Amino acid sequence: MALVVHKYGGSSVADAERIRNVARRIVRVKDSGLDIVAVVSAMGDTTDDLIELAHTVSSDPDPREMDLLLSTGELVSCTLLTMALRSLGYPAISLSGPQAGIHTDTMYGRARIHSVDPDRIKSELQKGRVVVVAGFQGITEDLDITTLGRGGSDTTAVALAAALGAERCDIYTDVEGIYTADPRIVPNARKMSEVGYEEMLELASYGAKMHPRSIELGAVYQVPIYVASSFTDAPGTLIQQSADERKMENRIKVTGIATQANVAKITVRAVPDRPGIAAALFEPLAKGGISVDTIVQNTSEERTTDISFTVSRADLPHALREVESLKETLGAASVFSDPTLASVSVVGSGMQNTPGYASRMFRILADGNVNIDMITTSEIRISCIVREEQAAEAVRLLHRGFQLDMEGQ
Amino acid sequence: MALVVHKYGGSSVADAERIRNVARRIVRVKDSGLDIVAVVSAMGDTTDDLIELAHTVSSDPDPREMDLLLSTGELVSCTLLTMALRSLGYPAISLSGPQAGIHTDTMYGRARIHSVDPDRIKSELQKGRVVVVAGFQGITEDLDITTLGRGGSDTTAVALAAALGAERCDIYTDVEGIYTADPRIVPNARKMSEVGYEEMLELASYGAKMHPRSIELGAVYQVPIYVASSFTDAPGTLIQQSADERKMENRIKVTGIATQANVAKITVRAVPDRPGIAAALFEPLAKGGISVDTIVQNTSEERTTDISFTVSRADLPHALREVESLKETLGAASVFSDPTLASVSVVGSGMQNTPGYASRMFRILADGNVNIDMITTSEIRISCIVREEQAAEAVRLLHRGFQLDMEGQ
Repeated sequence: MALVVHKYGGSSVADAERIRNVARRIVRVKDSGLDIVAVVSAMGDTTDDLIELAHTVSSDPDPREMDLLLSTGELVSCTLLTMALRSLGYPAISLSGPQAGIHTDTMYGRARIHSVDPDRIKSELQKGRVVVVAGFQGITEDLDITTLGRGGSDTTAVALAAALGAERCDIYTDVEGIYTADPRIVPNARKMSEVGYEEMLELASYGAKMHPRSIELGAVYQVPIYVASSFTDAPGTLIQQSADERKMENRIKVTGIATQANVAKITVRAVPDRPGIAAALFEPLAKGGISVDTIVQNTSEERTTDISFTVSRADLPHALREVESLKETLGAASVFSDPTLASVSVVGSGMQNTPGYASRMFRILADGNVNIDMITTSEIRISCIVREEQAAEAVRLLHRGFQLDMEGQ
Repeated sequence: MALVVHKYGGSSVADAERIRNVARRIVRVKDSGLDIVAVVSAMGDTTDDLIELAHTVSSDPDPREMDLLLSTGELVSCTLLTMALRSLGYPAISLSGPQAGIHTDTMYGRARIHSVDPDRIKSELQKGRVVVVAGFQGITEDLDITTLGRGGSDTTAVALAAALGAERCDIYTDVEGIYTADPRIVPNARKMSEVGYEEMLELASYGAKMHPRSIELGAVYQVPIYVASSFTDAPGTLIQQSADERKMENRIKVTGIATQANVAKITVRAVPDRPGIAAALFEPLAKGGISVDTIVQNTSEERTTDISFTVSRADLPHALREVESLKETLGAASVFSDPTLASVSVVGSGMQNTPGYASRMFRILADGNVNIDMITTSEIRISCIVREEQAAEAVRLLHRGFQLDMEGQ
């Protein structure tokens, strides 16, 4: 029997009424003759509430303990959804991440799935049951509980869809799909009916509300991902390879504008400019599990260099401790940080091969008096780090400047 | 190194300040040179809140789902206590029931521990860590999560103490020990400095706030259990075999008065009085996981019999469904139930061998105008089922009538 995987985000299961609503949606799919695995996030703000609770007993909670604590949020929502399904008369069973066979590495707080053992899920599906899986969590070789990081339930869903050979992975959320920019910032942003994995990856990495690793997984295993609202039946956005290919003939250069808040910058000043200095700085950070985003290095005349890089604001204290401990080894003059930045990105196809897009972006920002702190580019993206309070204005300027609000784009 | 197991109840870890208080208590023990395993219940009313939440999505939540849901309460408290210990500078690690090696049968909601695999705990203790274990929960052979029933964390603690060869198992709660009667009902009830396992088992089964199975386990594995308050340093009550034995010479007939609220009675009327009828009734109830307490059967002149039995009020709907479905098979005329009863018990040593104690109990209740609905006795206990609203008065009458408030008893 054909199988679909659904994922319901925290706002879709925020209370009993919404959970019953999700149960009714699942029942419709089951009645249409499909097998279904539903992955759920924690209810509403549960994860934030648990983090806050941890900080009432410890100023610097241990990551392993934090993960076991946070994993409870999804256990609650997945058992409640299962109960709601059963009370509609449908056989259903909840599975924790470990029970669902989600095996991860030991990087607490941002663990990566290294394998999925789908035997238990398959056997429950064969019994005719709807299987409800707690997203966001997995288990290490030593049977410790890990979480996959913010938005990790998306990755759980796509990984299960890949492992189970599902037809499609539906991500149900509180927005109706993927837009050319955040509609809360740009009211006339357009919803896309489809988008390619790569562009979506850039959009997700730079602000769209999806876990970037879920897109990577979807691309690698060719799982079509459909993003839609759990509150309406409005058509959503389909993320798949063919979309990208079909677009080859009628290429739209700029797909959308992404933005990411909570960016922090660390600058290491006046490091001796010798080989190996970047490795000496970034290897310990990687080992500490800190994701470094944009990196900029400027060599000055005095045989020293300044290295700046960005991390998420949540990682700043941890990253700063690491860097401070390396200061002497590196021979750096000083270390300083700025926690109140944001990134704004223009995402599209083949941008790096088309000169002029970057300069057009910089011109639009300059004309809007938005100062650019750092710049980074990829094959399909140009990102600028700006002051956080100017980020929304920057998105609006770029959305208009690249004429994304026009029909037929 | 000598090892102690501590158990902290829900009121002892009800908020951040109390969790920090428990952490400080544990640190004092660790500093005295002992290894320590701490078992915790869920914070405050968490379990009740989760049950209520389940009932918002389902009128009759599935027991397996309920257990996975309820198990989250202890995960939260055990990770928070671990964080609090670490923030005091002490190495500590939290373990879920499965991680702590608590293996159970599949009787959801009242699972029994069939084995404890203490390898992980031992290896963490060897690393010098305080081990904090989520009470109340275990794992089946099929890796499903179970809970041990109300108060099950006591049983987790004693089972771990037995498996690890601990010196003692300390049960910290919001009362200062075991009393001759509930001090909220009988203000001059006395705290006992020690009590034997068997008497404690009857006291626990009939009202004292401890999980009866924890006492059974303690008796079988000869684990001394110390019950005391987590809020004061007042001396508590030691439950151990030798106490009973020392008492042999100076035997006190009545140890205490126990009471149990939330008793419900089911009566099956006019069942044909033939062999096998009790088995036909009680076997399906046992298979359904319903604990039946007092059973009374009265044969009438017309070759039929009435069978009455009590269950906990929570089990009444489930039990009634079972009994109704058996009505035809049994050939019963009717089934009725009464949910508003309570039991009151006099517990002591060798009561059944000493005629007069039962009649003295019945006389005290009769003089107080307390009507007795059912009676049951054991080697060391006489219990009466009474109307719930008369239970407190019955306890006071019996405490006074058996002179338990007198010093030197």
